[in-house]
Amino acid sequence: MTSADASAAPLPPDSEPGYLAAVTDLLGALAYGELCAFSQLAKDAELAPTLRHKSAIAQLAAHELRNFTVLSERLASLGVEPETAMEPFVPAVDAFHERTAPSDWLEGMVKAYVGEGIAQDFYREVSTYVDADTRALVLQVLEDDSQADFAVTAVREAIAEDHRLAGRLALWGRRLVGEAITQAQRVGVERDALASILVGAPGRPGADLAELGRMFARLTDEHTRRMERLGLSA
Amino acid sequence: MTSADASAAPLPPDSEPGYLAAVTDLLGALAYGELCAFSQLAKDAELAPTLRHKSAIAQLAAHELRNFTVLSERLASLGVEPETAMEPFVPAVDAFHERTAPSDWLEGMVKAYVGEGIAQDFYREVSTYVDADTRALVLQVLEDDSQADFAVTAVREAIAEDHRLAGRLALWGRRLVGEAITQAQRVGVERDALASILVGAPGRPGADLAELGRMFARLTDEHTRRMERLGLSA
Repeated sequence: MTSADASAAPLPPDSEPGYLAAVTDLLGALAYGELCAFSQLAKDAELAPTLRHKSAIAQLAAHELRNFTVLSERLASLGVEPETAMEPFVPAVDAFHERTAPSDWLEGMVKAYVGEGIAQDFYREVSTYVDADTRALVLQVLEDDSQADFAVTAVREAIAEDHRLAGRLALWGRRLVGEAITQAQRVGVERDALASILVGAPGRPGADLAELGRMFARLTDEHTRRMERLGLSA
Repeated sequence: MTSADASAAPLPPDSEPGYLAAVTDLLGALAYGELCAFSQLAKDAELAPTLRHKSAIAQLAAHELRNFTVLSERLASLGVEPETAMEPFVPAVDAFHERTAPSDWLEGMVKAYVGEGIAQDFYREVSTYVDADTRALVLQVLEDDSQADFAVTAVREAIAEDHRLAGRLALWGRRLVGEAITQAQRVGVERDALASILVGAPGRPGADLAELGRMFARLTDEHTRRMERLGLSA
């Protein structure tokens, strides 16, 4: 089975009964995240300083929506209503966005790069514990880097013009990560099925505590690297 | 030349010198309208009552952005920067949207159907006066009816549940048309090149006064028909 077929493949026949719930949670959380990323980028587009930036950011928004569509179709092919799969993640994802509403388009670009980046790294880590077809689909959705390149260029150019921005945007980056961790913990506590992918379930091995520790170290390292790429201290 | 080639075809070789400016205005106005329709629908999606409505409206937004992309590419193939072509229409289109910001998602749906509908009818009328390739492109962009069907169903269902909505939404529909006419007049006065498509220019015939009168009658009739389809009095 190649990744091109991943969106229509059934789950492995030997999956234990809780596995469909776990994959549903993973795809539902990702799908709602993409739908909200669409909304957020559409709003960022309106704040953009030129028509050129506005249309470029609108295209990024449309890309998130295509990812949302892929994930919804995969959920439907597993016999799950996409809305039902997304519903449990609405409070946490909405809370994250309400608490991190960008006050200008540059904060929006830092959020698109740093906030999306840490979420994508996290899902990429989680995907190592799921079946090959689900993993291929998740990696396909996470693959695109056009958003990252656009955001990095925009933020670096703005800082080159006005160095004082660096301090404010660095603080903003820290706040984004803090809120992301808060909401991720909330999801981890509330959603046993999603947590079971990482920590394991009867008949399904997960990560041990040492591996989880290494995972968080990798997430932190990648976050620091992204902040540096923006020209910001983490 | 079929409509499939319209986006790359040159203007007719016998075009008079002002014709490129006229087509640039037409495509620029349409493109900025589509970009703003994207933003508006993305905002409407956020106000939607369910995740199902939210994702359906987000897909409508993405459709507007695809139209924007087609128009931008056509402008580029004519050697015109899309941003330059759109710029003259920013004040009028922005003013329209600022004065008709929906207060809930149903007002957004009426706006998507009634406001877009009258604009589309107008551009369809204008397109009868341009060359065949430009006309094919404009009609291709205006062709889609999925937005209309979704909006009509949503509004009719809401009125069936709460009859009092009909009065408020009918008033809203009238306000939308009033603002659309105000801003269209402003554009007509400010943009000679665009106006020349309708009223003609040296070497290029336009509509006479009787034909313009019939055109406005057709626009009014179609508007009334749309309001009726929504279950609203015009």
